[in-house]
Amino acid sequence: MKRRLLLVSNSTLHVGRYLQHCKQQIQDFFWKVRKRILFVPYVLHDRDTYTKTARDKFKTLGYEVDSVHETPDPVDAVRKAEGILLVTEIRKRVLEDGIPYMGSSAGTNVSTISINTTNDMPVVYTPTFAAIGLVPFNINPHNLDPDPSSKHMGETREQRIIQYHEEPDTPCVLGLREGSMLLVEGNNATLLGCTKARLFQRGTQTTGYEPGSDLSFLRTDAQ
Amino acid sequence: MKRRLLLVSNSTLHVGRYLQHCKQQIQDFFWKVRKRILFVPYVLHDRDTYTKTARDKFKTLGYEVDSVHETPDPVDAVRKAEGILLVTEIRKRVLEDGIPYMGSSAGTNVSTISINTTNDMPVVYTPTFAAIGLVPFNINPHNLDPDPSSKHMGETREQRIIQYHEEPDTPCVLGLREGSMLLVEGNNATLLGCTKARLFQRGTQTTGYEPGSDLSFLRTDAQ
Repeated sequence: MKRRLLLVSNSTLHVGRYLQHCKQQIQDFFWKVRKRILFVPYVLHDRDTYTKTARDKFKTLGYEVDSVHETPDPVDAVRKAEGILLVTEIRKRVLEDGIPYMGSSAGTNVSTISINTTNDMPVVYTPTFAAIGLVPFNINPHNLDPDPSSKHMGETREQRIIQYHEEPDTPCVLGLREGSMLLVEGNNATLLGCTKARLFQRGTQTTGYEPGSDLSFLRTDAQ
Repeated sequence: MKRRLLLVSNSTLHVGRYLQHCKQQIQDFFWKVRKRILFVPYVLHDRDTYTKTARDKFKTLGYEVDSVHETPDPVDAVRKAEGILLVTEIRKRVLEDGIPYMGSSAGTNVSTISINTTNDMPVVYTPTFAAIGLVPFNINPHNLDPDPSSKHMGETREQRIIQYHEEPDTPCVLGLREGSMLLVEGNNATLLGCTKARLFQRGTQTTGYEPGSDLSFLRTDAQ
């Protein structure tokens, strides 16, 4: 399998600028790749501004950014492509052609089995929660530990993931705290970054992993 | 319109037991109602335990609780009912027959236009986000103010609601902080409880409201 993925928890850390905390990993990851990167900005409403942010950042790293939302296709075609063709095409190019895929936050969510373990409100309806499936498990980016001093009674991330695992046949969920990222190369997976990650498995105790951990065993949690 | 609704932000406050903070409002609300209350426990996986919690609590207030999940219908029928018949039937009984409806947290979400402004992860796929529509606006229960000391970079509730309002034709969203609830009687709506609420409107500044505020104008935010 040719797959090469860099799945980042979050684009911006509390102290730092856009993609600054994973700049080194991005440079290592895209090294020797041709100089053009395709950017998918659909997570935000203002796609022009978001594309400019990404374009400016990647320019400082030596890459040109093309955004799918700037293609000459009419809006309808882009919308259809977004739901069907784009997902299939991304999957094909990443898994068969070995084109490197980097996601951060929402881009990490959509690379997994499903978007059931994204955070916050489902403010836009999607006809399916199925995702691109570049890895055979789910990820919860921006994973957050409960604040012991909080008086808020809403469910914690851990409680929601446990509820997710109350459903049958749900894959394990890798909780990537902010500052954390997963590098996947073929069948090897390594935890990178400055924070630890947590692995939530259905019916099993949650396990913590330090940066540098080999998480290649996750490939056996097959679909 | 006969509608009578009590829409509570949350079932349990940090200090206190299940439904304790809104006990008085529940007693005022169900006063003179027949002694049986129909409980819909589908928000949690363990419906027996959740029903027992509600049943025990309402017993101390003088009410018997029937849970829809205990009906003799087979599972499939209940599942279908949950999605179609139950919603239609609840809507009919509340709006036409004047049966009082009380919701808390998820029960508040499903009483509104849609569940787009529920919190946290969409851990279970639903074929529609449309809700029962007992009021012509949305509610965000457990509404939470940003913590100025937090270093977490995930979106705040306010940011998500603003993203919701980037979509066309989205209704206003009443943010009910924990401890807050909305009493709707016919065309009158009053904010009750111990915390303030925030009203998010598309293209307009957010407005805060004190407990006791008359929010009857929300009925004019018609679809």
